[in-house]
Amino acid sequence: MNSENKETVKIIPLGGLEQIGMNITAIEYKDDIIVIDGGLSFPDDDMLGIDLVIPDITYLKDNKDKIRGMVVTHGHEDHIGAIPYIEKEINIPIYTTKLTMGLIDYKLTEHGLIDNIRRKVVTYGQIINLGIFRIEFIRTNHSIADSCALAIYTPAGIIVHTGDFKVDYTPVFGGVIDLQRFGELGKKGVLALMADSTNVERPGYTPSEKTVGKTFDHIFDDNRNHRLIIATFASNVDRVQQIINSAYKYGRKVIVEGRSMVNVINIASELGYLKIPDNTLISIDEAKEYPDEKLVYITTGSQGENMAALSRIAASVHNKISIQHGDVVIFSSSPIPGNEKSVYRVMNELEQKGARVIYHDTHVSGHACQEELKLIYALTRPKYSIPVHGEYRHLKRHAELAQEMGIEKKNVKILKCGEVLEIGEEFFDVVDKVPAHGVFVDGLGVGDVGNIVIRDRQHLSENGLIVVAITLDSGSKQVLAGPDIVSRGFVYVREAELLIEQCKDVVSETIYNCLEDGNADWNKIKNSIKDDLGGFLWERTKRNPMILPIISEV
Amino acid sequence: MNSENKETVKIIPLGGLEQIGMNITAIEYKDDIIVIDGGLSFPDDDMLGIDLVIPDITYLKDNKDKIRGMVVTHGHEDHIGAIPYIEKEINIPIYTTKLTMGLIDYKLTEHGLIDNIRRKVVTYGQIINLGIFRIEFIRTNHSIADSCALAIYTPAGIIVHTGDFKVDYTPVFGGVIDLQRFGELGKKGVLALMADSTNVERPGYTPSEKTVGKTFDHIFDDNRNHRLIIATFASNVDRVQQIINSAYKYGRKVIVEGRSMVNVINIASELGYLKIPDNTLISIDEAKEYPDEKLVYITTGSQGENMAALSRIAASVHNKISIQHGDVVIFSSSPIPGNEKSVYRVMNELEQKGARVIYHDTHVSGHACQEELKLIYALTRPKYSIPVHGEYRHLKRHAELAQEMGIEKKNVKILKCGEVLEIGEEFFDVVDKVPAHGVFVDGLGVGDVGNIVIRDRQHLSENGLIVVAITLDSGSKQVLAGPDIVSRGFVYVREAELLIEQCKDVVSETIYNCLEDGNADWNKIKNSIKDDLGGFLWERTKRNPMILPIISEV
Repeated sequence: MNSENKETVKIIPLGGLEQIGMNITAIEYKDDIIVIDGGLSFPDDDMLGIDLVIPDITYLKDNKDKIRGMVVTHGHEDHIGAIPYIEKEINIPIYTTKLTMGLIDYKLTEHGLIDNIRRKVVTYGQIINLGIFRIEFIRTNHSIADSCALAIYTPAGIIVHTGDFKVDYTPVFGGVIDLQRFGELGKKGVLALMADSTNVERPGYTPSEKTVGKTFDHIFDDNRNHRLIIATFASNVDRVQQIINSAYKYGRKVIVEGRSMVNVINIASELGYLKIPDNTLISIDEAKEYPDEKLVYITTGSQGENMAALSRIAASVHNKISIQHGDVVIFSSSPIPGNEKSVYRVMNELEQKGARVIYHDTHVSGHACQEELKLIYALTRPKYSIPVHGEYRHLKRHAELAQEMGIEKKNVKILKCGEVLEIGEEFFDVVDKVPAHGVFVDGLGVGDVGNIVIRDRQHLSENGLIVVAITLDSGSKQVLAGPDIVSRGFVYVREAELLIEQCKDVVSETIYNCLEDGNADWNKIKNSIKDDLGGFLWERTKRNPMILPIISEV
Repeated sequence: MNSENKETVKIIPLGGLEQIGMNITAIEYKDDIIVIDGGLSFPDDDMLGIDLVIPDITYLKDNKDKIRGMVVTHGHEDHIGAIPYIEKEINIPIYTTKLTMGLIDYKLTEHGLIDNIRRKVVTYGQIINLGIFRIEFIRTNHSIADSCALAIYTPAGIIVHTGDFKVDYTPVFGGVIDLQRFGELGKKGVLALMADSTNVERPGYTPSEKTVGKTFDHIFDDNRNHRLIIATFASNVDRVQQIINSAYKYGRKVIVEGRSMVNVINIASELGYLKIPDNTLISIDEAKEYPDEKLVYITTGSQGENMAALSRIAASVHNKISIQHGDVVIFSSSPIPGNEKSVYRVMNELEQKGARVIYHDTHVSGHACQEELKLIYALTRPKYSIPVHGEYRHLKRHAELAQEMGIEKKNVKILKCGEVLEIGEEFFDVVDKVPAHGVFVDGLGVGDVGNIVIRDRQHLSENGLIVVAITLDSGSKQVLAGPDIVSRGFVYVREAELLIEQCKDVVSETIYNCLEDGNADWNKIKNSIKDDLGGFLWERTKRNPMILPIISEV
């Protein structure tokens, strides 16, 4: 390592932490910026009505001319989901591996962008030049094929970004993570390591994907007389491959159900990432021609998502598949935090309808545990560590692990979204902050739902509302019509007629008092109505509905 | 067992399953009914704005004259929380152990009912007579002291109800579960066993509560220079005792924070369930006089509940405690399904403010695992098994375990809420169904928020609303004022002025068309506005706000 090197680069996470799962990072040196990944995150429970959260790319828009391209580590939504939204704002070329690009292409096509974006497929080991930066794509293992780590050669030194990874010595598809290359880079000298923190709390090693295949074989063997339904992540192509392998081995036909599952399987098999023996895949309508015990369904919905195939099957609202006594349903997944209750609800529904649900030992994680992380540290021996990908508590445990691996405490930094880290042989500190909150996508609207709207939705969701409509004569200031009271989400009006009548009395008195005081300022009248009616309702019901006074003037 | 016995009794769960956690069961023989427990459940995520869910006791009200009393197994909310609501409807005597009664008394006092309800404290081993029934209270172990199982002597035979239980050979307070008595009852002949299913998926034994005490000692020892904050369930008196024990041993003062924690500790220590050495407990204001490393706070909020002490501390909105760098916060609990994300959010907030969060090995369950359940089956050898307390998937696994333990498949039944099981030596079947859905409590309202209100809240929470106000002349049918558009939770109006103007145009045209058609039926106009404006907004925004047209006539 050249200790005379005084150059520094900037690392700017534009997602992460406040928006877990939204992976996007800019790396900047003078007039060159590259972007790593372009992920989205799914809304928290309190982001009512929001469909998606995408990164704030104000900084990238403001520096559009500097951006040389986006490099993508793998094809999960939290790494590629925001790409269409980003590309609409700043058209930049994309570089990634084949399957990842296949998944991105599908999104760009859906958004009508495919013809306008420059895209280049890379292979493991390849090095591309983007401005001053050279970026090498290194093979890793993860829960989706074609994942890679990045070695980013900068004027300040080599930055290694692991992407999401695990060490799988017996992967289902492709080779073992290129540990040798990590070692070579370490020998050259690695300035900084940005590594996956998801499983840092788990001791030991994450088991190989192949262990799930063995479990599948056992389940297929034990349940030769039952129909099988297996739910998993659409993007886990290797998992799907193993289901197909077991199905073939045990003489079952495979039906694929759920839009995203169909899409991913189409893309993956077209690109050669999925080997499906002839006559194994059949359509859902062909299934009728086979006895139940010769079928296995692969479906979406392993996270209990309301509209996914498995949830619709469980709720008996799927138009082609209904649960029969004896069905065996396998959850080949574990609940993402926040989804537990939905997952258990679907499981309970399935069991109540006569299915047997299996969900132990049917999944392995795609993320490195403690010993795997230590291995990467031992191979790369970075000067600095910047833990990425995880909740804050994970990043903090990771920071401790880095110190155990010999990194000095002052050389480990947990970055907040938008913080600008300047890094070089002799400098390592946060020097600036750029805008980087999440942007809400609701229907076609991007960013038009903000905190005020969300707060109103929260208020409405907990307390409902009362609309008070009054028509006043603009000349005489007399009440011409109303007050009329309309309520939604507060009480069932037909059963609360007395209360509503009392509300009218309260409002009438308020208006009378206001007008008698000569107070014909509509805003003041509205505020008096809110205060008086709100107070009355709180006392009577200990509830706090939103009150919307509407005064029409004729 | 007298196989000549042709008598039957009825078992009617009025909570459970659809309303997990709401434990209340009626047992009936001719003119006698007893009620076991009176629990509530906490609302699911989709029960917007609901505070509590209590059981529907229509059946009990309709048969009030038959009810001889309520027997209560232990003092958790899901077993006692609805008692004040039940007692307001049907005043019935309550029988339970001392601590459980102390917790019930507190509730009855809060609701102003304490003077009107007959209550009798029982001791382990005691048998009481309620009409035809004799009920014996048997010592068990659980995560709250004074828990008991019930042996209910009925004309049809003995029914054993375990309550919530575990086997703890080294309990912190009181004795080991009275396994001998379970054995004696088994020898006499047990007709039916109703046993706790919560942990039926876990192999082996649940560890003793004392193991947590050892972990506390280690944590106190390892963190002699740090302030400690420990969050746990207020009702877990033994856990609190162990924190106090460690505090005393390591020379720390204890501060109790959080309303329910203070209440339970007061009740438990008054009744002798908590031994607090002199000068150990100090007030939060006295804490200032001690160095941080001589303090341990016991707080509520271990489930990430928004308003609980620990969440307020984490969010920096607690008025007396703020997190300092180096604080050690222990979660002595595990997240109840559905609370995971809230718990992790609080953990992340605490870590971000400089605390170290510990949550491994700091909790043991209060429920029996597989081997403990098998033990109870081996001791009681019931003819019938009715799994209770758990989600459906747990009840089903329990039903399988019962069969492994030699109960015939036809003699195991999972009951749905409200199903009437008739049971005797020669009969075991569901013969009827009584009303038994959950009743929503929202503020002071009990049952006035039903499905329509909840559906409206859901609609409002996801999409917001648009109010359209119009004033029409009743004679000429001319528009005198409006249409005015008011929106909440849809878009931020100041940033969507164009859209709102377009909405007005759409509505104006709709009204014009309606009136021109001679269609002056207000309801038809309202429906046309909903259709036209709804269609316009869906096309423009792919959102579906609630539309509330209000027509005033002058």
